[in-house]
Amino acid sequence: MIDRLVEKIKKTHAPIVVGLDPSLKFIPSGIREKAYAEFGENLQGAAEAVWQYNKGIVDAVQDLIPAVKPQIAMYEQFGVEGLAVFKRTVDYCKEKGLVVIGDIKRGDIGSTSEAYAVGHLGQIQVGNTMCRGFDEDFVTVNPYLGSDGVEPFIKVCREEKKGIFILVKTSNPSSGEFQDQRLADGDMRPLYEQVGEKVACWGETHMGSEYSYVGAVVGATYPEQGKILRKIMPKAFILVPGYGAQGGKGADLVHFFNDDGLGAIVNSSRGIIAAYQQEKYAKFGEENYAEASRAAVEDMKADIESALAAR
Amino acid sequence: MIDRLVEKIKKTHAPIVVGLDPSLKFIPSGIREKAYAEFGENLQGAAEAVWQYNKGIVDAVQDLIPAVKPQIAMYEQFGVEGLAVFKRTVDYCKEKGLVVIGDIKRGDIGSTSEAYAVGHLGQIQVGNTMCRGFDEDFVTVNPYLGSDGVEPFIKVCREEKKGIFILVKTSNPSSGEFQDQRLADGDMRPLYEQVGEKVACWGETHMGSEYSYVGAVVGATYPEQGKILRKIMPKAFILVPGYGAQGGKGADLVHFFNDDGLGAIVNSSRGIIAAYQQEKYAKFGEENYAEASRAAVEDMKADIESALAAR
Repeated sequence: MIDRLVEKIKKTHAPIVVGLDPSLKFIPSGIREKAYAEFGENLQGAAEAVWQYNKGIVDAVQDLIPAVKPQIAMYEQFGVEGLAVFKRTVDYCKEKGLVVIGDIKRGDIGSTSEAYAVGHLGQIQVGNTMCRGFDEDFVTVNPYLGSDGVEPFIKVCREEKKGIFILVKTSNPSSGEFQDQRLADGDMRPLYEQVGEKVACWGETHMGSEYSYVGAVVGATYPEQGKILRKIMPKAFILVPGYGAQGGKGADLVHFFNDDGLGAIVNSSRGIIAAYQQEKYAKFGEENYAEASRAAVEDMKADIESALAAR
Repeated sequence: MIDRLVEKIKKTHAPIVVGLDPSLKFIPSGIREKAYAEFGENLQGAAEAVWQYNKGIVDAVQDLIPAVKPQIAMYEQFGVEGLAVFKRTVDYCKEKGLVVIGDIKRGDIGSTSEAYAVGHLGQIQVGNTMCRGFDEDFVTVNPYLGSDGVEPFIKVCREEKKGIFILVKTSNPSSGEFQDQRLADGDMRPLYEQVGEKVACWGETHMGSEYSYVGAVVGATYPEQGKILRKIMPKAFILVPGYGAQGGKGADLVHFFNDDGLGAIVNSSRGIIAAYQQEKYAKFGEENYAEASRAAVEDMKADIESALAAR
């Protein structure tokens, strides 16, 4: 799957992933009203609105991008009904040929991580039948519990030829509170560097042709740390959130890429899916929200392309 | 809700939580076969088997214990159908008067943690209606992203009078890989102590009458660390996994409790829900699995009681 992601990035010339992170406040009122009229002002109505909204965006941008990253929390907020639409979105994006990165940030003790890995990437035996739960192509993983929380994911990835991105240095303002703590017995390196080294180590056991199936999450908002981590994990693909709405710019991103122009994929969520709410794309209007998203993808692609060309 | 948990612990004399962590291999064959006959060998059939199994256990032990802790991963492995049974289990346990701790170990950047908090503890506005997703009483939270990943949970807890348990020192063998790293600018304290201090600090902002709504997870498998953390976080309730199947014993647990005999709640999952598969309870047989679970709860209660009496 990492080889397929690389191939799709080369084909689209777009190291971009669109974060399908729906919030009711992003969804055009016409879509919401129609869904509520049909299913009621309840979780089912909300989930239907999310689905119609997602479908519009995916249809509009699918030929421009290699991958999408639905953030499961934005579905989980609508309970079981929301998670049914998460699954429907995953399936629809895969049908359209997109690589699907489930942003689930799971991680637990060994036997529990195994259940998450099975539910999101693998299959489970029921009687004599093998069944698949959410069936994404990649998921994000939280490393706080150490190797035995991560390895069950790698095991399933090996069986399924799928991949993971492990949280190393996250994009949020307080990510430094624990992640930047300098370690006494590690030459004063910060914790995120040690996690990065583990990612490189875990990744060696499951390689694609150029890059590992085990990647990392490093926020666009921390370009200096990205530069260091790029060197620590040369074979890890870096998933870079924080572009756009969170403040990251194309110029901040160049050090996340290797010299081959690969090795990183940049996520934008709000900046793309709610583009029509920005002044820059207001001319599209609410009803043409999906075209506004397409324009925003094109602009993001140009921004990153020119930043990479200028380095 | 922390006051209600304390009150229920006093009433049952059992600082015990039963982990409802179903695995198909724990479920008696009769229950599985009936469910598959009705719904097929598919995710729905598996979910139905889980539901019947859970219901049997809850009915058998509900008067002995204050709380249950369903581990969401064990439901998520069955996809959307599994999560529907997670919700059904939460609702059923609440109907029976049990406090429900959703073991979800979520944690993300601020806006995303907010969605998790809303989906699991709070409510979301859909049109003019307020809707609830999973609606547990407590959830577990992963702190790797720092304050802005935790605070949205505390905000919702304050509104809803609910609580969280933050991962501090987990019960698994590799928990030390990152959690035990000694920090250069923290007098060489390990990371988990720093996380414990943050838990104490976060907890001050949301207190019940004796204990805080912000608790901590500290594994029974690390009693020495539990002793230290008990002092660092005097007002935090400690959720203690790792008893039984993972190797923790009653005598290991005494330092997790305060002198008032409160301040900790000990989880056992497999040791209770699959008790009938242990030699000790084999006499109950598969069909009386729920009575075996009841006997295991009584034994666990006696083990902890005598350990506390002997200290």
